[in-house]
Parts: sequence; structure tokens; C-alpha cells
Amino acid sequence: MQIWLLPEYIEDILPPEARRIESLRRRLLDLFHVHGYLQVIPPMLEYLPSLLTGTGHDMDLKTFKVVDQLSGRMMGLRADITPQAARVDAHLLNRGGVVRLCYAGSVLQAMPEGMMQTREPLQIGAELFGHPGIESDVEIQQLMLKALQLIGLQGIHLDIGHVGIFQALMERGGVSADLEAALFQALQGKDVSSIGELAQGLDAVTRDAILLLPQLYGGIEVLERAQKSLPDYPEIRRALDDLRSIAAGVGEMADSIAFDLAELRGYHYHSGVVFAVYLPGQAHAVAKGGRYDEVGKVFGRARPATGFSMDLRVLCGALGPAAAAPAILAPHAGDAALQDKIETLRSQGEVVVMDLPGHEAQRDELNCDRVLVLRDNQWQIEKIKS
Amino acid sequence: MQIWLLPEYIEDILPPEARRIESLRRRLLDLFHVHGYLQVIPPMLEYLPSLLTGTGHDMDLKTFKVVDQLSGRMMGLRADITPQAARVDAHLLNRGGVVRLCYAGSVLQAMPEGMMQTREPLQIGAELFGHPGIESDVEIQQLMLKALQLIGLQGIHLDIGHVGIFQALMERGGVSADLEAALFQALQGKDVSSIGELAQGLDAVTRDAILLLPQLYGGIEVLERAQKSLPDYPEIRRALDDLRSIAAGVGEMADSIAFDLAELRGYHYHSGVVFAVYLPGQAHAVAKGGRYDEVGKVFGRARPATGFSMDLRVLCGALGPAAAAPAILAPHAGDAALQDKIETLRSQGEVVVMDLPGHEAQRDELNCDRVLVLRDNQWQIEKIKS
Repeated sequence: MQIWLLPEYIEDILPPEARRIESLRRRLLDLFHVHGYLQVIPPMLEYLPSLLTGTGHDMDLKTFKVVDQLSGRMMGLRADITPQAARVDAHLLNRGGVVRLCYAGSVLQAMPEGMMQTREPLQIGAELFGHPGIESDVEIQQLMLKALQLIGLQGIHLDIGHVGIFQALMERGGVSADLEAALFQALQGKDVSSIGELAQGLDAVTRDAILLLPQLYGGIEVLERAQKSLPDYPEIRRALDDLRSIAAGVGEMADSIAFDLAELRGYHYHSGVVFAVYLPGQAHAVAKGGRYDEVGKVFGRARPATGFSMDLRVLCGALGPAAAAPAILAPHAGDAALQDKIETLRSQGEVVVMDLPGHEAQRDELNCDRVLVLRDNQWQIEKIKS
Repeated sequence: MQIWLLPEYIEDILPPEARRIESLRRRLLDLFHVHGYLQVIPPMLEYLPSLLTGTGHDMDLKTFKVVDQLSGRMMGLRADITPQAARVDAHLLNRGGVVRLCYAGSVLQAMPEGMMQTREPLQIGAELFGHPGIESDVEIQQLMLKALQLIGLQGIHLDIGHVGIFQALMERGGVSADLEAALFQALQGKDVSSIGELAQGLDAVTRDAILLLPQLYGGIEVLERAQKSLPDYPEIRRALDDLRSIAAGVGEMADSIAFDLAELRGYHYHSGVVFAVYLPGQAHAVAKGGRYDEVGKVFGRARPATGFSMDLRVLCGALGPAAAAPAILAPHAGDAALQDKIETLRSQGEVVVMDLPGHEAQRDELNCDRVLVLRDNQWQIEKIKS
């Protein structure tokens, strides 16, 4: 076994991709900043209960655990920054009104989510706390779509669901928690035959509605169909109204938009509108999010919350290969005028690399297309002939 | 036990400090970039041997360990990014000439280094591989001092040592590995009586030289005294010449400079010039580094290497409290002209926060000193009266 091999689904990010990821990170954080989202940097490690409570069994399996030598207690490495942001909102900022937060950082996952995925996503996202209305869902989705447009992604497809519809059917139908969990699984997998079997014992209204959900997928007309064919519960009416507001607020910002009333994503975590963005030819979502009003409750303060997050690695990959900016080579020994020239070029953003003595043969590794030379007593830039 | 309490020596970084840390990170990475340092993003996790080999027992104790569920092997959370950069240089880039790398990211330490320190430093640094000469040590120290000046730190004190002097004395004196380790410990603690006891069995030349080392501390005159009073070995002559070159190259960039020939820092790791930067009133170094030619060897390719690193938390702390930029409040409902006005302001870098319905009472939490109002049919910025 070679000592420098990395674990599976763990990778270095090398130049020039690393610089591009840095640039994406900055443009996104700056976008969030001018929209009033305050940056926070939560830690990589927390005690396990504060990382996991309210997030469900999936998150437990995903989380790397280590013993804290100082307290003897179990700590976890964060697998998601969103619950950390909820903790910061609930307890550290402790405001009564709206709080907007954003973040960027590594998260670690004990198991990869899929074959081509990493165990160390570079999560970047924004969260809005303290506002229960659809206006904040619209703001969050607008911000996400602006972010994806800003970095030049094309063919943006937005998929929108609403956990409230399924929740209302379960509650009104008096469905047990176990059966609800099984139905959730079957719906997530669009497994129509399982849904049929599981729904057999339910009352006719609930059963018909559950069986209908996987078909309620498509453009804005889906909301009309749902209105007509789903039971006329006020929660369902409200959810469909929410989805219409979203369509009005963000419809023109995505290249295509679909409503998917069987889409429940992290159901135990989310509580209202949920959404995901897909790009042509990519199997996994490049961005996802939704409302999760219940997460803060475990920290003693249930606050309305909605947000989204993305993985900078995925965004970078979707943009195709990166290229490094060519640099200028500078001779090592030189006078004060050379030093001034170099510093001026650098202050203009040019990369100027010193040619250290003894490495003349390896100069072409330095990615320089120009060189500083002394002509007529002046330091000038000349092209390097290849 | 309250669920949202963090482990000891683990902290959130809240707004406005988080935004300042982001700004420091950017300015430093951009400085490294224009000097030709290529950014890399190594992973948080590696197999334990690749993280620890060549770094000594200290690093082993510092490193959090987790089992990889995919391979059953032990992995570690990085406690230092420098050996990762050496691995990237040795095996992924695989160049023959000079390679300059830089990085910024969290590192985790099982135990804090001191009472007031964190277990999650935000390490940022630059490393230069492939050049054995003092020119690269000078370049690295110049870059570090430029970085500290750039972010506005004052009273920069540079402490410089050279591991080669102690190494030459141990080798020429035929000192056993155990005794060498004990002497190293005693020298690091400036424990003169222990040094005296430990050196008793050595030959007179080695003993006198070792006893002299703790006194060889001070300005440039120390190098003269060392030349006269230490044994005239070629390794020692070369080390003192190196230190003179450093003094000539960086002397004017620091506010004060001291040579400390008993300073060995990470001795098992470093192999030549070592250095640390202190600020007035701060017990711990704000930046440190040195030459570590041997670290790459465990990855199958011993490459000359020199570099430095800093902790963004420490740099941020040294600058005093941060303040958030005041924002502009925008009404939620508005026409297209309002939306245009908001986007123009944001594109100029202004923070514009939407006033979501139902939160009029908590507006003062949003840190807005101006508001957008419609006057004479135009959206205008007005000051908020406090």
C-alpha cells in the first residue's frame, strides 16, 4: 500500500481547480453579503447530540464520530452546516426578528451519497431564520438562482415540492408513524406498487390521494390538477398557494421549472416548500434546500427557517476544466528598479514568479508566457518564445 | 447539560468577525497568488500514516483518529496542512523544479496547544519546494512579512534560529539519539541546569558549545559571537552564513529581529532555518515556519522545502474587534424600478436587506442606517433617524 494514497471518495483539489473554487466561493459569499446574509464560521466538530438532534437517522449514519479527550464525551464531525446555522441563530444571535446567515466550509460524510460523489463536500449556502411566510422561501430561491446564474451555469432546472401536502394527508388520514415512514420511503423511490400495497388499509380519500402524488409532476398545470383532485384540506390549499407564489417569484429565473408533489427530500428535517436544481446531463442536484421550521426546536427555540446549500466541488465540475492564468518570470538578482516593477505588476493582479538560481532547466514548469528583461536600462515585459 | 454548548476550545466564529476572517483569507491568498504560489485544497481526512510519518510523536498525540468504514483502516483529521502540501508536491504535481503552493483551511487538534488556544486553527500558509538554497528561505520570510504588513499588523518581531547548528554539534560530538532528544527538550525550555547535567559526559568542545547556545540570543551581533565561540565546523559556518543572508534579505521588513541559536521548534520536522513572528503583548507566535527538507522523503521523494503558516483566528484577534458595514433597508413590495435600484446598489457593494412583512418591530436588529423610500416618483436613499 503506497503511503500517499488517499482514502476512497477523498480527493485533493489541485491548481488550477483550487483557485477556481476559491473564486466561486468569493463570488457566492459576496452575493450573499450584499443581500444582507451575515457570514458565520461554525466549527468542524461538535458534541454529537447538538449535531444530530432533529436531523434523523440518515445523518447519524453519515456522521464520523470521535471521542473528546477533554470531556470523554462523543463528538461528531459535521456532515451538514445547516443545523449549525440553526444553532447559531437560536442561541448565539438570539434575535427576535429575521436573521440571514451564510457559510462556506468542508463537511465530512462517513459514507459517500453515491458512486461518483465525495465524502468531503465543500458546502456553501444561505439560510433565513425567523420568517414563516412564503416571501422568505421566494427570497431564498431567488438568491440561489442568482448564485447559479452568476457563476455562469446554463440549463438550470428547478424542481419544487411541498412537504405539507404529504403531512396533511398523513395527519388527516390518521396514519401511524411506522406506516408514514414506509410510505415516505416508497414515495421517494417513486415505487408505485409498494405505495399501492402500503395504502391498502387507509380510508379511500387518503389512499387515492397518496396514489395520485407520484403523478403530480410537471409544469404549473400540476397545481391546477392537484387542486381539483386532492382532498380540499386547508393545509393542502395553503401549500398549493405557496407553490403558486414561488412560481410567480422565481419562474422566470430558471430555464425550466417542475412541480413534484411526491418530492419530500429530507422529510424529517423539512416542513414546507422543498426544492432542488438539476443541470443537463448531471444525475445529482447541484443545489437543494427548503423550509425546516422544526430544526431549531431542539436548541430550545423553534424558529421558522428556510435555506439552500450547494457543493463548490460540484459547481466547479459543472463548469468544465479550469485553466491557470499565465505568469511573468522575473530574474532573481536585480536592482531596486526591478523590485519596483515586480511589485507594480503584482499590485495590478499579475502573477510574477521569481526564477530561483539553479532551476533554469525547469522554467517551463512555471507556466510563464512572459519574462522581465532589462532593455535600454528599463525593465520590460517580453513574450517567451515557445 | 445544554445541548447547544460546544466542546472546550471549540468556538463558532460569528458575524462581523467571520466576514473579517474571510477578508483576511482573501487578501493573503491573493498576495500568495501574485507571487506565483498555486492554491491547493487537501482533504480534512487522510489515512493515518500519510498524515503522521516524518512528523514525530507530538503530531500523533495531536491528531484525532477515526476508522474508515469503507476500508477498515485508521484515518486521521489533519492537524497541520504543511505535510499535505509536501505530499501534493511529491506525488501529484511531480515536477523537477521549483513548486510554490499555498492553502487555507481548518485543522483539528485533539488537545489545545495552550490555555487560550483553539483546537480548530484556521491555518493559512505558503510552501516552496524543490530549492535547497537560502534564496528560497529569504523569499518565504519576505512573503510572510509582506502578508503581516498587508493586513496592518504592527510591532512585528521576527525570531530566527537554525536547526543545523545543534545538529552539527550532535553529529560531530557522537551524541546518542536518546541524549540528543533530552538535550533538545532542555534547550527548548531554556533549562540551563538540565543542559549542564545532560552535557556532562560529552567531550569538552561539544559540551561548551551546547552550554553556550542559550546565550546566543539577540541582534545581528549574535552571529559574530557565535562565529568566534562555536567550533569552526563547516556546517556551522554555513548555518551562520545562511542567517546573515536572511538578515540582509528581511532585516528591514520586521520592526525588530532577534537570532536565537537555541531555538529548534519542530526539530524532527525542520532541517535548517526556523523562524517565528511575535507581536507586542501576545504570548504565542502569530506566524512560524522554516525549512523541512526531510518531510517529503516518506512519500518516496525527498524534496527541499521551506514555508510558513499562520492562524487566521490569531491574526483576526490581533487586529482588535471587527465592525459590520451598515446596510440599506428596502421595502418588500415594490415596482421594477425599486428592484433595479436595489440591484444597482448591490452591484456597487452595498448591503441591501429586504424588509420581510411582519417584522417592522425588529428592524433595528438588521444594522441598517439607511432606507430606500419613494420620493417624487424616484427611489431614494434616506438616513434612518435613530
